[in-house]
Amino acid sequence: MNNEIRSPKTKNKIPEPTIRRLPWYLSNSKLLKQKGERFVSSTQLAKETGIDSSQIAKDLSYVNISGRTRVGYEIDSLISVLEFFLGFVGIHKAFLFGAGSLGAALLDDSGLSHFGLEIVAAFDVNPKLVGTKVNGIPIFHTDDFPQKAEMSSVKIGILTVPIEIAQGITDIMIEGGIKAIWNFTPFRIRVPENIVVQNTSLYAHLALMFNRLKENTDENYPDRK
Amino acid sequence: MNNEIRSPKTKNKIPEPTIRRLPWYLSNSKLLKQKGERFVSSTQLAKETGIDSSQIAKDLSYVNISGRTRVGYEIDSLISVLEFFLGFVGIHKAFLFGAGSLGAALLDDSGLSHFGLEIVAAFDVNPKLVGTKVNGIPIFHTDDFPQKAEMSSVKIGILTVPIEIAQGITDIMIEGGIKAIWNFTPFRIRVPENIVVQNTSLYAHLALMFNRLKENTDENYPDRK
Repeated sequence: MNNEIRSPKTKNKIPEPTIRRLPWYLSNSKLLKQKGERFVSSTQLAKETGIDSSQIAKDLSYVNISGRTRVGYEIDSLISVLEFFLGFVGIHKAFLFGAGSLGAALLDDSGLSHFGLEIVAAFDVNPKLVGTKVNGIPIFHTDDFPQKAEMSSVKIGILTVPIEIAQGITDIMIEGGIKAIWNFTPFRIRVPENIVVQNTSLYAHLALMFNRLKENTDENYPDRK
Repeated sequence: MNNEIRSPKTKNKIPEPTIRRLPWYLSNSKLLKQKGERFVSSTQLAKETGIDSSQIAKDLSYVNISGRTRVGYEIDSLISVLEFFLGFVGIHKAFLFGAGSLGAALLDDSGLSHFGLEIVAAFDVNPKLVGTKVNGIPIFHTDDFPQKAEMSSVKIGILTVPIEIAQGITDIMIEGGIKAIWNFTPFRIRVPENIVVQNTSLYAHLALMFNRLKENTDENYPDRK
């Protein structure tokens, strides 16, 4: 699976689908709050998201909040509990590897910081990039990573390098103390058991979308190619 | 599920996990080709990707290629068949909605065009953005979309707007003839049955990574908070 998370611990782990759904409840709660609501029930969230209300109640049972009969969850509490639970409140520092097209785009996306991720430095080997900054974030030479890593407590690495060096850079990252890798390459990196890998392959998502679009088009217009 | 694809057709559909794995075989085949290989077997791909070789053979049975006993697949054929199958060869035109932080980043990511996606125009309501260009791509006012849509045959829409207007813009896109929506918002949009939705919530992926990293850290260093 492309978005799998590998982790040695499996018991008592919050299921991945639950973690994937929680941001939906969060964004809908924020919208309802904007509309002046003070409470939100799982029935209401079900109506807004199209997810079964018993599933929602089950998902929310993993986070530390309890609803009140008839009125539901206090909306401010639900928002802050979810934001905290999802890690969007604290700041998680990260290094980015590969400041090319996609890498630079991520450096430029200040939206990530609203969700708890702060990219503190980037690494690349391109002499045109090394020594420059994107969105205020310095780009160092990859060779300088071990030294920078030693001076920092950064545990997250973002991988946006060409596939040819994806595994090599992964190994360097882990050597330098990185514990979680957000892999944007279409390459399946190999890591030791204790390292978290989050695969986000935009290209795999594109392929899926193209495929399903083509299927729909072929079905609706069988005469067209 | 966050990355689900909804589509009315289910029979004979290529399984989503297969489509997710195919880009891995593609990138590994490209690497092996660079190393001078002319043939690649599923055993070899299994070794490189860590995926079971019988699974690989099964996945590749969906694409139009046949391997030869002992030598495997001809590597050039495998690459071009996979690229074609995944839709990375043709050009799929797309409109982007919301040229803010993440939207502008995607406009700037010229890597997408190597995977078959060409963003031909963006739409926003911000007067500072309307009339400007990012990476050569013009940004129009959202109100101009229906007219632009009529003149074009664009079937793909990329959604990178604030959650408050995610559903409203979705409805406008569909009204204008968009058949597939690549949803980057953390909002669960509702669409008619015949519309393809590909959810790519970077924030949900972040939340997953934070959560698994925290679990690992708590487990390895139970004394730390």
